[in-house]
Amino acid sequence: MEFKKELNKYQEIINNELEKYLRKQECPEKVLNQAMEYSLMAGGKRLRPILMINVYKIFKEDYNICIPYAVAIEMIHNFSLIHDDLPGIDNDDFRHGKQTNHKKFNEATAILAGDGLLNNAYQVIAKNILQEQNLETQKQKIIAFSELSNATDRMIAGEYVDTEFEGKAISSDYLEYMHKNKTGALLRASARIGAIMSNASTEDLEKITKYSEIIGLTFQIKDDILSAIGDEKILGKPVGNDIKRGKCTYVTKYGLSDSQKMLEKLTNEAIEIAKTYKENGEFLENLAIYIQTRNK
Amino acid sequence: MEFKKELNKYQEIINNELEKYLRKQECPEKVLNQAMEYSLMAGGKRLRPILMINVYKIFKEDYNICIPYAVAIEMIHNFSLIHDDLPGIDNDDFRHGKQTNHKKFNEATAILAGDGLLNNAYQVIAKNILQEQNLETQKQKIIAFSELSNATDRMIAGEYVDTEFEGKAISSDYLEYMHKNKTGALLRASARIGAIMSNASTEDLEKITKYSEIIGLTFQIKDDILSAIGDEKILGKPVGNDIKRGKCTYVTKYGLSDSQKMLEKLTNEAIEIAKTYKENGEFLENLAIYIQTRNK
Repeated sequence: MEFKKELNKYQEIINNELEKYLRKQECPEKVLNQAMEYSLMAGGKRLRPILMINVYKIFKEDYNICIPYAVAIEMIHNFSLIHDDLPGIDNDDFRHGKQTNHKKFNEATAILAGDGLLNNAYQVIAKNILQEQNLETQKQKIIAFSELSNATDRMIAGEYVDTEFEGKAISSDYLEYMHKNKTGALLRASARIGAIMSNASTEDLEKITKYSEIIGLTFQIKDDILSAIGDEKILGKPVGNDIKRGKCTYVTKYGLSDSQKMLEKLTNEAIEIAKTYKENGEFLENLAIYIQTRNK
Repeated sequence: MEFKKELNKYQEIINNELEKYLRKQECPEKVLNQAMEYSLMAGGKRLRPILMINVYKIFKEDYNICIPYAVAIEMIHNFSLIHDDLPGIDNDDFRHGKQTNHKKFNEATAILAGDGLLNNAYQVIAKNILQEQNLETQKQKIIAFSELSNATDRMIAGEYVDTEFEGKAISSDYLEYMHKNKTGALLRASARIGAIMSNASTEDLEKITKYSEIIGLTFQIKDDILSAIGDEKILGKPVGNDIKRGKCTYVTKYGLSDSQKMLEKLTNEAIEIAKTYKENGEFLENLAIYIQTRNK
């Protein structure tokens, strides 16, 4: 309960920061800006920015330097949601309990709003790197830019694999490959950028990377479990569609019980890593438990 | 005729460079990579890279430093073509005389291939900036990155305005705004990046910017003329669709004769600027004429 409050605090911080990047001016593309804002501010969990900031905070206090990168990664996450929901891909009508972008606006606007958010992320980063006077810090930011562009590439590849194999029985290798890329890559980049920005050691970067890879997996397994047996009202989206669509998920492949066992085992591994940072690792410990136990 | 050969030479150079960035390996997303390659290598004019390189060559000889940026801008141009052609936007079946991406592959693949090319452009740039050891050169590259991200933002806005106002009578201000962004912004960035990379003076950067803004306009006016009265076989796409769709173009708004007069007047202005660079400006002079007189 305490941790939920802390999460909410960070969600508010991120939402306030995102607000600063929204474009509200009168212009011929005003509705496009509204469509970008609609999805960006539709009430996501802000998991990626929160992970980035709290990895940074293990090593250093003032996380303001991370904000543009946290904003960028959240833009990229939301670009991917808009495009995934399109009629040509998942054809979903609701997300976060609200109409999806193409339902609220139209298909052309949703395609371009997704494109706009992806590109906007890089605009934010370009401006931030350009304005950085300290050469050491600029170097870290360029590395962060590279991390993000590589992770986004992997995310798109993962989404492609997801669409190509929908309705087909796939091997556990493929299932893991898909999630490692589709969901895992951006979570991994969030954690790594937090560590890189704080100038963490190579050893710490490796530990943080491992932690993020594990919670990338637990996040997906839990997602699959919620998609199968979650509460539609709490989730804000229909439940049980994966089976109808013949979608290969952890639950459809390994069954509910084994999926829950995998989830628990992996969560414990993530907690082990977090514990090596003692009180500084408490947030990551709680985050791993939250991902395991969340109901939406 | 001589200039056509020179253009072909540069097209080959660009095509060879693009080839180096294609991903041919066996992987679960192989078909996605093929879809990206399909559109990227579908036989475009390579106008943006050629403009970038030849602006650079006004000021400096060895244009190799521009190549990753020329590649990136061509990737971004092709991303925009794939998404513009989608059923949700223009719903076009042919481009460059070949099936559009979603016709050749499918809609989901085309959406993600567009996303992939946009992101790939930034991957190329991130890697290139990260590897640059010379701090002065790195600074130029960061500026180029910023230019490109801002131009792409404008391109997406222009495309949005195009979709929103399709089938409606729009003012000449809106028509110009649309083209300045949709086609103009990326051509402008190509020229400016060429100048920035060559360390051109502020005065030269302004002249080059002006030149590129003019040919952005002439390119669009000529496009509209070809779309109305061009040869379908040479163009590789249907002619006369603009009127059917009620699309507002220079030709549907000002008529053919006035559009041709505007085209000539603007081309002469571009030539004037190019002439100030004497023999070094010859390519830009010929390019302006080529854009005016091309039949595809």
